[in-house]
Amino acid sequence: MKNNPKEAYLSLEKHFEKIADVERAIELLNWDRAVMMPATGAEARSEQLATLTSIKQDLLTSDTVSELIFEAESKKGELTQWQQANLREIKKYHTQAKVVPGDLLKRLTYMAAKCETLWETAKKDNDFSIVANELEEVRKLTIEKTNAISSNANKPYDVMLDQYNSGCVYDDIEPIFSELERWLPSFLDDILVKQKETVELPDNFPINRQKKLARYLAGVMGYSGRIDESSHPFSVGRIGDVRITNRYNDREFILYSTLCILHEAGHGLYDMQLPKEWRRQPVGGAFDISMAIHESQSMIWEMQIGHMIEFWEFITPKAVEILKLDKNSDVYNPKNLCAISNKVTRGHIRVDADEVTYPLHIIIRTKLEKAMIENNLSAHDLPEAWKSEAKNILGIEPPNDSLGCLQDVHWYGGCFGYFPAYLLGAMNAAQIFHKMSDDLDNIGDYIRNGEFIYIKDWLREKIHKFGCLYQPKELIYKATGGCLEINIYKNHLKNRYLT
Amino acid sequence: MKNNPKEAYLSLEKHFEKIADVERAIELLNWDRAVMMPATGAEARSEQLATLTSIKQDLLTSDTVSELIFEAESKKGELTQWQQANLREIKKYHTQAKVVPGDLLKRLTYMAAKCETLWETAKKDNDFSIVANELEEVRKLTIEKTNAISSNANKPYDVMLDQYNSGCVYDDIEPIFSELERWLPSFLDDILVKQKETVELPDNFPINRQKKLARYLAGVMGYSGRIDESSHPFSVGRIGDVRITNRYNDREFILYSTLCILHEAGHGLYDMQLPKEWRRQPVGGAFDISMAIHESQSMIWEMQIGHMIEFWEFITPKAVEILKLDKNSDVYNPKNLCAISNKVTRGHIRVDADEVTYPLHIIIRTKLEKAMIENNLSAHDLPEAWKSEAKNILGIEPPNDSLGCLQDVHWYGGCFGYFPAYLLGAMNAAQIFHKMSDDLDNIGDYIRNGEFIYIKDWLREKIHKFGCLYQPKELIYKATGGCLEINIYKNHLKNRYLT
Repeated sequence: MKNNPKEAYLSLEKHFEKIADVERAIELLNWDRAVMMPATGAEARSEQLATLTSIKQDLLTSDTVSELIFEAESKKGELTQWQQANLREIKKYHTQAKVVPGDLLKRLTYMAAKCETLWETAKKDNDFSIVANELEEVRKLTIEKTNAISSNANKPYDVMLDQYNSGCVYDDIEPIFSELERWLPSFLDDILVKQKETVELPDNFPINRQKKLARYLAGVMGYSGRIDESSHPFSVGRIGDVRITNRYNDREFILYSTLCILHEAGHGLYDMQLPKEWRRQPVGGAFDISMAIHESQSMIWEMQIGHMIEFWEFITPKAVEILKLDKNSDVYNPKNLCAISNKVTRGHIRVDADEVTYPLHIIIRTKLEKAMIENNLSAHDLPEAWKSEAKNILGIEPPNDSLGCLQDVHWYGGCFGYFPAYLLGAMNAAQIFHKMSDDLDNIGDYIRNGEFIYIKDWLREKIHKFGCLYQPKELIYKATGGCLEINIYKNHLKNRYLT
Repeated sequence: MKNNPKEAYLSLEKHFEKIADVERAIELLNWDRAVMMPATGAEARSEQLATLTSIKQDLLTSDTVSELIFEAESKKGELTQWQQANLREIKKYHTQAKVVPGDLLKRLTYMAAKCETLWETAKKDNDFSIVANELEEVRKLTIEKTNAISSNANKPYDVMLDQYNSGCVYDDIEPIFSELERWLPSFLDDILVKQKETVELPDNFPINRQKKLARYLAGVMGYSGRIDESSHPFSVGRIGDVRITNRYNDREFILYSTLCILHEAGHGLYDMQLPKEWRRQPVGGAFDISMAIHESQSMIWEMQIGHMIEFWEFITPKAVEILKLDKNSDVYNPKNLCAISNKVTRGHIRVDADEVTYPLHIIIRTKLEKAMIENNLSAHDLPEAWKSEAKNILGIEPPNDSLGCLQDVHWYGGCFGYFPAYLLGAMNAAQIFHKMSDDLDNIGDYIRNGEFIYIKDWLREKIHKFGCLYQPKELIYKATGGCLEINIYKNHLKNRYLT
């Protein structure tokens, strides 16, 4: 044991450099699996990932780390602000990893993997019974996990929320979600009445041209990493080697590839602009702090900028040029393309939902997962509960489970407590963009001219460069001058859809 | 400590599965660095590789492994033949990793990395003095390393040879190399007198078409993994996820991309056809057993098959079709293309050398590296020694060091004892191909018809499927019915070049 607290802290840094390297390796193995690996490599890759994950777990949970944290905390005052924040993140990371007994983690990981595989068949065959027992097992093991993490687990759902959004509790989000649940349905009715017709896209937009357009767009945003293709787009990496993927569909290029590249390049810019000097430390990361912050960085581009008429004024001529579209058609003008991007409809599927119905999809899931974790809603009762909530909240009942409780993989893979981050991310995005528009008077002009550098720089200075220095709420406060404010989000929706 | 030898052995297997997974991860990080990674990722990637390498080293050298080996060896008789061979490989692997003190390894790794970086400049600037001191350091540290590996180090060069070719000693190769050194120069003169003129290729062979041709050729060979591009082609991986790279040059497609894809896909087939059930164990590998065996598997395709008229009869029409060549030109007929592939010239550069002068390049390097390790040839005296050996052995003296002792990276990167594997690989290839031609009567017809499946299967049954079950000499004996025989190699050269 070190007798010098500073020295103990520095030993922790050394140790966590190693952990960061193993994490980056795991990320690369996953990226490669999604983007490059032939299917015949799947078995060996799973083994490699399991081994590296267990190596990481051993490094994270070692007793030496506990001792060093104890030692370093004894004279925290001697550390800089960044070092203190790093120590806080190290401690959280270590505690979370250590608190779940290895045996429980193994059972949960195994059952979730099994359940996720069965879910694919269940979804395809539209037969919930295929996966019901396993989901019930995953649910029970997840409850066991929350009990292990928090001895004072009278609010186990908070434990799940905290995993993905440091410091987030249900009592914070409940009033916001309730208000949206109350307000959105009639707002939605108003929009559906007022909404104008759009001229539909013909199909056939060659994918190689769409790739060029995506590359161009990410480039003007200031994103400079790799762009590959995968069926579920994602972003990964840090600083000098960030990678994103995009998806393409030759019948559509607006909702599919263009909004998607804005989303992923938004994530990518965050990871590129994290503080370089902390890149091998927990405090230098971004995903760890809050998914609701990371999602906000993609949604600023996808949901705020990507739906503005100024954006379509900028990108339409470029799209006409790169996709070799018919200039004289009445389809390819900024107004029509923007209207297509803003079209609102009640639908069953979350990932296809527009900005207005999307929150309702999240509210359904939040209620149900809270009930599964806290109120003993059994997996066997989930399909009926889903239908009933969907009817109440969204106003339509799914005709089957594939369009209902089987649509998302999250719970089947053991992921409870993540969904709220999507909605909180959208709200954070609205609030951050609102502040940015105040700071940059000419934001509409910048967007119309493709001068995204001002936006990229603003985001770096206000959000990205801080990594996990601040806790999520603090970061939002510092960046926007206030706490998360539902009225900003509601005003954004009103301005966009009813004026 | 386990009290059951069988159980101890099985614990070793479990432990070495983990090591294999880390090795595969290291390979992927290296593959990605060469093929996919943007240059801005270099620093972080080096850190990741250093971390994974040290994790691997810790796993390899742990005291538990020593204890388990001791225990398992106590009743080796209870193990199967494969398990015994695996235990032998595990022991070798462990001992080699453990025997070099960590501090020495660190100094050598650091100095070799520094020296290799300086070498790039030295070669480019044709200035040996830039790298002389560092090479001398690397040489001295390498001698220290040989002393650490073998306490009875009166033949330190053997220690180096054994690293890359299990069981290989200088006394084995000396008579062979001497005989070639004696015989080849006059043989070479004979060829140069008799050699016929070829019709030269025009330039401009679009690279995307060459890629198609390479993909086609690897495909008919039975290779089914990824083919990417890198400046120094290589192969990596095992079984279901083997990856090779190729290089392209739009002025040439025979010596550059076609022979290169034969070479790399030859390596790739070996790795694809290793024993699947042993894929996470040392005995299931191939590189570890002998570089002279692995090189033979590429050279069978590149140097044996790729220089036969039957091969050019097969590939020429395909090349005309895929590369869209002028059918009526007098360049693109099998005879001329085959003659181009077989052209012999005395040149300074090893990697550009033909089959006949190639052995002389290797003999120069073998003598010099032996002298550096055993006879105190200082790095400072290397340029003069090189010139003198080149003049004696190859018959031409390089006009400068970039065409002389600066041309290959090996020594500067700390790799001594590897060069002989290239020549032994070529000789093994000749001998294996000779036996294969006996076994498959119609081998010329098979090649002319592109029916490479017979060759692929023969190689799997005689070589690939054994992994490291046998030691190199034993494997060659079993596959070819004899020890490595210089006359087979000489006859091959005589048949090809003087009849």
